[in-house]
Amino acid sequence: MAKEFKLPSSLSVFGNEDIAYDFLSRIWGKKGVFTCTIGNTMTSTIPGVSEAGDTPELTLFTPAADAEMLVNGRTTCMKGIPINPGGIPTPATLTMAALELSDMPLHIINGGCRINPYIPYYEVGGRCGEAITSGKSVHNVKECFERGKVLGGMLAKGHDFLVASESCAGGTTTALAVMMAMGVVTENLVSSSSPRNPRELKTRIVNESLNAANIKIGDLRDDPLKAIECVGDPMMPVNVGLIIGAAKHVPVIIGGGTQMAAVIAAVIQIDPSVIGNIVQGTTRWLVKDPNSDICRMIGGISESVPIVYINMDYSKSPYEGLQAYEWGFCKEGVGCGGASISAVISSSGKIDCDIILDKVHEVYKRILNI
Amino acid sequence: MAKEFKLPSSLSVFGNEDIAYDFLSRIWGKKGVFTCTIGNTMTSTIPGVSEAGDTPELTLFTPAADAEMLVNGRTTCMKGIPINPGGIPTPATLTMAALELSDMPLHIINGGCRINPYIPYYEVGGRCGEAITSGKSVHNVKECFERGKVLGGMLAKGHDFLVASESCAGGTTTALAVMMAMGVVTENLVSSSSPRNPRELKTRIVNESLNAANIKIGDLRDDPLKAIECVGDPMMPVNVGLIIGAAKHVPVIIGGGTQMAAVIAAVIQIDPSVIGNIVQGTTRWLVKDPNSDICRMIGGISESVPIVYINMDYSKSPYEGLQAYEWGFCKEGVGCGGASISAVISSSGKIDCDIILDKVHEVYKRILNI
Repeated sequence: MAKEFKLPSSLSVFGNEDIAYDFLSRIWGKKGVFTCTIGNTMTSTIPGVSEAGDTPELTLFTPAADAEMLVNGRTTCMKGIPINPGGIPTPATLTMAALELSDMPLHIINGGCRINPYIPYYEVGGRCGEAITSGKSVHNVKECFERGKVLGGMLAKGHDFLVASESCAGGTTTALAVMMAMGVVTENLVSSSSPRNPRELKTRIVNESLNAANIKIGDLRDDPLKAIECVGDPMMPVNVGLIIGAAKHVPVIIGGGTQMAAVIAAVIQIDPSVIGNIVQGTTRWLVKDPNSDICRMIGGISESVPIVYINMDYSKSPYEGLQAYEWGFCKEGVGCGGASISAVISSSGKIDCDIILDKVHEVYKRILNI
Repeated sequence: MAKEFKLPSSLSVFGNEDIAYDFLSRIWGKKGVFTCTIGNTMTSTIPGVSEAGDTPELTLFTPAADAEMLVNGRTTCMKGIPINPGGIPTPATLTMAALELSDMPLHIINGGCRINPYIPYYEVGGRCGEAITSGKSVHNVKECFERGKVLGGMLAKGHDFLVASESCAGGTTTALAVMMAMGVVTENLVSSSSPRNPRELKTRIVNESLNAANIKIGDLRDDPLKAIECVGDPMMPVNVGLIIGAAKHVPVIIGGGTQMAAVIAAVIQIDPSVIGNIVQGTTRWLVKDPNSDICRMIGGISESVPIVYINMDYSKSPYEGLQAYEWGFCKEGVGCGGASISAVISSSGKIDCDIILDKVHEVYKRILNI
């Protein structure tokens, strides 16, 4: 079956095609469940680190606001919607469009927030993370991991596949730090929500954080939860557990970019048996980003975790805020890639990039009242 | 279709048969989702009120422990399992058996607990309730109702029907108080987890509570949320919202006895359009209880909410702790009736009372290590 599988033009695959095609053929036309784990790390308030918010302080509102948009179609914890400086709207706009089209059930999981969303969410015992420069950045890691694992098993029931995703501003920096601590990357390949990826700043913060935790590159190869506890963020332990708990029962799409690469590295180290039942799901914007290298990063983590990406293209959008995605803004987040891929998959390819783009415009006009 | 519907001997119907048969025929063989909303009210610690726990203090652990049993198959927040004085095991044993057989997805919702369970659960902003004798017993009622409504809509997605249920020790007393405040009952018809139903004590506490809140019988007929705020418990506002939110999309089985009767009264007052899409799901033990009258109570609330009950019979069980259900202990709770009915429904009747009883024995031996 996998060999005969024909990929629609809306999707592309990078990496292990056998696994990707087998994975896709098993869930083609099936019904999944979407999850988004939100968290805050005080790392995002270090000036210059995160552009997932109009100002460093507002980055703390972005995860809760993203979650509110997915559930209620509007924000409650803040006015307006999360934007990058310059007004580029959160990728939650694409996630919303894809979820509306696929009518996928949705669960928000609170990994640990400073600002909690005004919606129903899954609680797993997490707390807001400290700045990673402390070297002690995440609380209750074991507990959140274990509850995440239980939740993964619970949500796998009654659904054919699961999508895990994240909204956690500052998360590419914490991801870099965790992957350096594990030694799965030894140089800065990570992405940014801005085309002006502040690589030097991130590298400096990561080095400072590893020093504060007294960790040398690769020291925690065998102990990813310890790496997360020292230099990670609260989105990570829950998602690591969730993916392991779910992938024992159903295929799991790990929706996201650099941040989820760190999660994948931890998942595979803790339970390599999930290989074959997980893919990374992301966007063309991220895969083609000239300022990062997700393919090399994932390839360095495992040869058996393919990347499936959605070929969304905003270049012909009439809205500059969306065109900006083509210039390197946002690119990924809030599971926008995973949700889009899932809409294609669960519709057996009937939903394509054009249909999703139309729905994105509808969502965009609705939330901006234009 | 409804007319031709043949009820299996495992199930019986009381009340409006047309609605019941139509309801059952629409979800026969379909897949539902089970929810249990847990909450604490300090009312349960008033000596003599609740036997849902070995001592008045332990009643505060019962909801969290019940939830842990459903999710993990064992308790973490306390040693052993919740029992009535005398050692009769929580009805969660029956719920576990039914959920194992039907493989139904499960969500625990935290209405507001003093003791939180060590599992993943849905958070909706609730807090532990005060003793109703204060006349101000539940916090954040509007917020919990609204979030419950949103959650009902979310959980209806991807499932053919929803089961709402509760574990909240002391809840028959708060239920009586709310129904008196609404005027839907004018005398004490409510049940108890003990055959020695302490009716005089409950009546006295309810009268004291209504006085404290300056409410006369029927004063709050049109404002059930206010009745809950004054003399209810934190399980109620969430479940009222959940049922209204879900019943707009899918049929809803309201699993439970007296406590859910109060919830039903509130639901119907707030949104009568749900009629036809809800039934109460309970047990033969409750319907046949000589010390309460659920049928008269529900009949007084509405002629259009039928009761569907499972004909479980523990009289031939080799375990005295289970035989005690036949003597009037426990009878209902933790959605045991709703879960059992759902197992019959989703298997198109292939799962029957005998199969459920065998599974109950398996669960009973496993959790008591015998």
